Amino acid sequence: MEKELSSIHYDKYLQLNKILAAQKLRSAEFGTEAHDEMLFIIIHQVYELWFKEIIHDLNSVIAIFKPEVVEESQIGVAISRLDRIAKIQKILVDQIDIIETMTPLDFLDFRNYLLPASGFQSFQFRQLEVSLGLKRDNRISYTQCAYSGVFSQKEQDILNEIEEGDSLFDLVEKWLERIPFLKFETFDFLSEYQIAVDKMIAIEQKAINEAHYITAQEKHFRLQMLNESSKYFKTIFDEELHNEKIANGDLKLSYKATISTLLINLYRDEPILRQPFLFLQKLIDIDELLTTWRNRHAQMVLRTLGQKIGTGGSSGFDYLKKTADKHRIFYDLHNISTLLIPRSELPKMPETLKKKLNFNFSN
Amino acid sequence: MEKELSSIHYDKYLQLNKILAAQKLRSAEFGTEAHDEMLFIIIHQVYELWFKEIIHDLNSVIAIFKPEVVEESQIGVAISRLDRIAKIQKILVDQIDIIETMTPLDFLDFRNYLLPASGFQSFQFRQLEVSLGLKRDNRISYTQCAYSGVFSQKEQDILNEIEEGDSLFDLVEKWLERIPFLKFETFDFLSEYQIAVDKMIAIEQKAINEAHYITAQEKHFRLQMLNESSKYFKTIFDEELHNEKIANGDLKLSYKATISTLLINLYRDEPILRQPFLFLQKLIDIDELLTTWRNRHAQMVLRTLGQKIGTGGSSGFDYLKKTADKHRIFYDLHNISTLLIPRSELPKMPETLKKKLNFNFSN
Amino acid sequence: MEKELSSIHYDKYLQLNKILAAQKLRSAEFGTEAHDEMLFIIIHQVYELWFKEIIHDLNSVIAIFKPEVVEESQIGVAISRLDRIAKIQKILVDQIDIIETMTPLDFLDFRNYLLPASGFQSFQFRQLEVSLGLKRDNRISYTQCAYSGVFSQKEQDILNEIEEGDSLFDLVEKWLERIPFLKFETFDFLSEYQIAVDKMIAIEQKAINEAHYITAQEKHFRLQMLNESSKYFKTIFDEELHNEKIANGDLKLSYKATISTLLINLYRDEPILRQPFLFLQKLIDIDELLTTWRNRHAQMVLRTLGQKIGTGGSSGFDYLKKTADKHRIFYDLHNISTLLIPRSELPKMPETLKKKLNFNFSN
Amino acid sequence: MEKELSSIHYDKYLQLNKILAAQKLRSAEFGTEAHDEMLFIIIHQVYELWFKEIIHDLNSVIAIFKPEVVEESQIGVAISRLDRIAKIQKILVDQIDIIETMTPLDFLDFRNYLLPASGFQSFQFRQLEVSLGLKRDNRISYTQCAYSGVFSQKEQDILNEIEEGDSLFDLVEKWLERIPFLKFETFDFLSEYQIAVDKMIAIEQKAINEAHYITAQEKHFRLQMLNESSKYFKTIFDEELHNEKIANGDLKLSYKATISTLLINLYRDEPILRQPFLFLQKLIDIDELLTTWRNRHAQMVLRTLGQKIGTGGSSGFDYLKKTADKHRIFYDLHNISTLLIPRSELPKMPETLKKKLNFNFSN
Repeated sequence: MEKELSSIHYDKYLQLNKILAAQKLRSAEFGTEAHDEMLFIIIHQVYELWFKEIIHDLNSVIAIFKPEVVEESQIGVAISRLDRIAKIQKILVDQIDIIETMTPLDFLDFRNYLLPASGFQSFQFRQLEVSLGLKRDNRISYTQCAYSGVFSQKEQDILNEIEEGDSLFDLVEKWLERIPFLKFETFDFLSEYQIAVDKMIAIEQKAINEAHYITAQEKHFRLQMLNESSKYFKTIFDEELHNEKIANGDLKLSYKATISTLLINLYRDEPILRQPFLFLQKLIDIDELLTTWRNRHAQMVLRTLGQKIGTGGSSGFDYLKKTADKHRIFYDLHNISTLLIPRSELPKMPETLKKKLNFNFSN
Repeated sequence: MEKELSSIHYDKYLQLNKILAAQKLRSAEFGTEAHDEMLFIIIHQVYELWFKEIIHDLNSVIAIFKPEVVEESQIGVAISRLDRIAKIQKILVDQIDIIETMTPLDFLDFRNYLLPASGFQSFQFRQLEVSLGLKRDNRISYTQCAYSGVFSQKEQDILNEIEEGDSLFDLVEKWLERIPFLKFETFDFLSEYQIAVDKMIAIEQKAINEAHYITAQEKHFRLQMLNESSKYFKTIFDEELHNEKIANGDLKLSYKATISTLLINLYRDEPILRQPFLFLQKLIDIDELLTTWRNRHAQMVLRTLGQKIGTGGSSGFDYLKKTADKHRIFYDLHNISTLLIPRSELPKMPETLKKKLNFNFSN
Repeated sequence: MEKELSSIHYDKYLQLNKILAAQKLRSAEFGTEAHDEMLFIIIHQVYELWFKEIIHDLNSVIAIFKPEVVEESQIGVAISRLDRIAKIQKILVDQIDIIETMTPLDFLDFRNYLLPASGFQSFQFRQLEVSLGLKRDNRISYTQCAYSGVFSQKEQDILNEIEEGDSLFDLVEKWLERIPFLKFETFDFLSEYQIAVDKMIAIEQKAINEAHYITAQEKHFRLQMLNESSKYFKTIFDEELHNEKIANGDLKLSYKATISTLLINLYRDEPILRQPFLFLQKLIDIDELLTTWRNRHAQMVLRTLGQKIGTGGSSGFDYLKKTADKHRIFYDLHNISTLLIPRSELPKMPETLKKKLNFNFSN
Repeated sequence: MEKELSSIHYDKYLQLNKILAAQKLRSAEFGTEAHDEMLFIIIHQVYELWFKEIIHDLNSVIAIFKPEVVEESQIGVAISRLDRIAKIQKILVDQIDIIETMTPLDFLDFRNYLLPASGFQSFQFRQLEVSLGLKRDNRISYTQCAYSGVFSQKEQDILNEIEEGDSLFDLVEKWLERIPFLKFETFDFLSEYQIAVDKMIAIEQKAINEAHYITAQEKHFRLQMLNESSKYFKTIFDEELHNEKIANGDLKLSYKATISTLLINLYRDEPILRQPFLFLQKLIDIDELLTTWRNRHAQMVLRTLGQKIGTGGSSGFDYLKKTADKHRIFYDLHNISTLLIPRSELPKMPETLKKKLNFNFSN
């Protein structure tokens, strides 16, 4: 039986007595109150609140992709949740403008009291990265110094547990591997695609060779470009090579999942592939926004601290710039762009398959 | 003597145990957890944290303008603080995009548990408005119903005390009234300005009358426009009329403060007037951003609730739209635009006055 | 046969010789060059370029909805195009920040040379409004003065032709009316929905009456609110009343289209309704962004011109504010929010219908 | 004598016949119209229009700083113009969201027709970089291939002329070198500052050594950090070392200009230094926004093209990422942050100097 309804008060519901009493300025405690320490505390608290919401949404998406059979109706929900995460990330980036109103001189008024704490020490942010799929081995260590013990034992245990379980990356990879349209009756997607790719390259080559209105130099350059392009296709036709690249760390997404991603991107207008396509797009959005956040964060640290090593014991700017490049999680989804071919060259799906991919009602 | 430094831990410094434990979902308590209630709680907490920061900055600006003599060096500080407030407001507006990811149907999953709380019940937001200078008499009442008792007696006392003291509007008005350059030796700003205005209108009138390349209809229309424009200048040359308009509620800023504002806007390039000019610009920014926030808030309520009366007992959309129009505080600063004349028509200041307005060093 | 490929040069492709030579400052021609006139010209040209892109996208969406049978695969395309329009609108709003760097005094340096031109005179913007579905009769006239002849005869003919043809609003309305799931075998959506609404209201009423933990006053207020809410449902159960409201101008969307919109919103998780739901959401986004643009535009005009009548012969600020309220096109889609009921109260669709709404493959 | 006023028409004033007729789709010319090519053309044209405005504003700032004696009243104008540039840059970054609505597959519909043109070939963008102060020698070459002849001979001549003249960087450096407050009567800023730095380091060292509440490990780490920090100060006290770093390419700003920058940052609250401080801040803003633009641009290219080499013949993503790191112009202004000391440690200026830095009126 439900609890009986009672009245609710705005302040109590939001627990503002806790939220608004949690700003204790170290500068006031140890010396003279530094006006800007309030901002420093509040913006970090805001970041942590948003991290909590992101994790809440992310976990719900993970739950949707956990079962062997992902419910059709839930993919739309997952997209909405990822879209919300992206919109929060946009704000996380934009509100760096606020912290940048604190000049380096203002920061010096209380910076000394903060040692050795650091913005890098957010447990929730780490949790977020791990849940998305960032693996320890791909992580750039942010400090060589003695402060490895940033997280408590309990926190480390939680992170380990998440890392050993299924990250969003892992679940999406498995889901992609299960997508059933790669072979259908006589339609073998990969070999049809290979024929199309070969034909496309041959035609382009011929066009360049026969062109009258371009210089010899340009002709040479275009042929070179075409040659470069054709190399990218090699890996997709060679599972062994793909697996080698995974072993080297050049790729992360499994061979089969990569082919499914390609299929979804090429045939995204078929009704049943529309939502999967949008879902993959959102993962790219989130990855890109994470990169943007790291870049802007690095800039802000450079501006506030210059080249000084950060409060976390690392040279903040350089570390953050590196993570922007290396801590990408869904990088392989970007790579699919390299493998796309123009719609005009797309192998036609048999009508029976097209029908399968449409709604019942539309028959 | 200063307290001895101790180490600080990120989580403890930010009191994350309080901040991250303050989300208790009513839907979970009374029925089934509604996923989006977390967002609803968190975004309101984020708003409240930002309101706290805005009040912190606003109070520091009020403190700067409280003394009879405002320190030159502090005006720059005041501008920076207002600029920070504006940047926070920008985020307050932009993050409406986040709450709009919650569709009306998602909101219905827990809306019933929230009655009769409402977003309008933020004490801090009310405090902010009153501190800026919104008076009870200019306020649109947001509910005719029994829920007048939104704020506790203690909260009401605080609001009354702030309203009886000096708001930012009051202090800025007094500061403007004290600005000493309106009359200097033989230079009487207002009469020089009046001569310039009259001359400007006469020239324009002549130009229109003598124009060959415009139709009679356009000539007529332009003369009419000019006539309308000249009416705006009446009030600035007639203190009594100005005071009548204040009595009617058409104007708020005192006659003398209005003239000073005009002077600052016209001679803003003189070094000593540069910072005052920028300061007045920032007040306009803040007023405008407040209006934008109210408009976007109204839109969001329309989208989420439709025409339903809000949880605060008022028809949210209509109420919010009205406040966007009526709760402007520095509206009279916008009005100065009507009174400006082109630089080419500006009365020349005597060199001795110009020197006074420059730096010592530059002599 | 295709034309043979030739090389392309960046400047020539973009016709930069035209684009970058189209800024001729009137202030330079008639007097002294006013630095900010360049900005004034360029930002208006940028707006016009974006309007051209919006119309390009909008027309493609209109083309998709023109046929009696809208292709499933094309709804996704339409959503993407609307999403692009929304993203452009976001920039149109944000770049008002740029024009606001031009202070009123800077504007006065060249304002006189511009008479009687005005920002309101954009033919493309008018075209855009008409294509979306704004009707002449719902339009607020922006000037009583002689300048009705803003658009050339040819331009007026084009606008009339668009207005007489099918706007996006018209096409969407017809498409909604054709949606076939309102009655299916024994499932009659509207009567099932009515039962659910009545039950919901009865339960809420009982809960309020039996509540122990709320005051008599609050009980009274809640019952009153519930009563208000129940009134909104009347129109949806009464086609005649709905048609009266259309006649009065209170509603625009036809009765049948309104019911379909309600169905789509309530059962949006069924695969076949997902895209239609997202499509309707995007229409709301676009309407909302148009309103935001009008509000911000009004603010900017107030700031730059004060209360002066604008260059178009109207009191710009007041006119623009009014259009923000009245020129909404898809307002009735917002109103659906008022009619939604919680998921827990939603009538169950029969399995045979649910199957129809799913993909072929999933059977 | 002024030309007589004539009426103006919105379309003619904006030369919309040119602007709106300058979109000729190659896809339509050579094959089938690709819907998204319109966007591709228009967004590039919008970028070029904004570049024109930025150059217009930038040149006006350069003109202000050209004379030996920069007029006090003009520094405020320069700041406003830089602020406008920053606001435009913000939009240049944000509108990448629009181009990202074009998916890789959509781009493939017309990409082939564009060869070998590329976004990198904007003459105006190059002009902008050179005018700000990017030198050929610091520029990363964007292509090793035969297409060095991106710009016409005439364009190359213009770029060379700008590079040989004074860039904004050069002029600001000279202006900083001329700032006269480094030595005043008995006050020698640099030696006073050195005393303050030494004292500050000694006190910190003592505090760390005597601290009871931190572990030995943390004590060790803090001393190490302090040691690192003190190294940064070396260069500012050693002109020869500074000049060596300039020769190595580690620094760009001259020794004297660097000291002036430090002074301005430390004593920014003195009235005469307020505007110079804000001016330097704006240069940092612009540099930072340029970096953000390059990073976002790189991301967008990765998303649209994957790892393919760009239409300009370079691997777009990698090239753009590199320029984001290396093409900073005012990097040394960021570095000043490293040299700041807390306000509490700041050497007191003699009253006679403080008076010099204040307004005449305030005496």
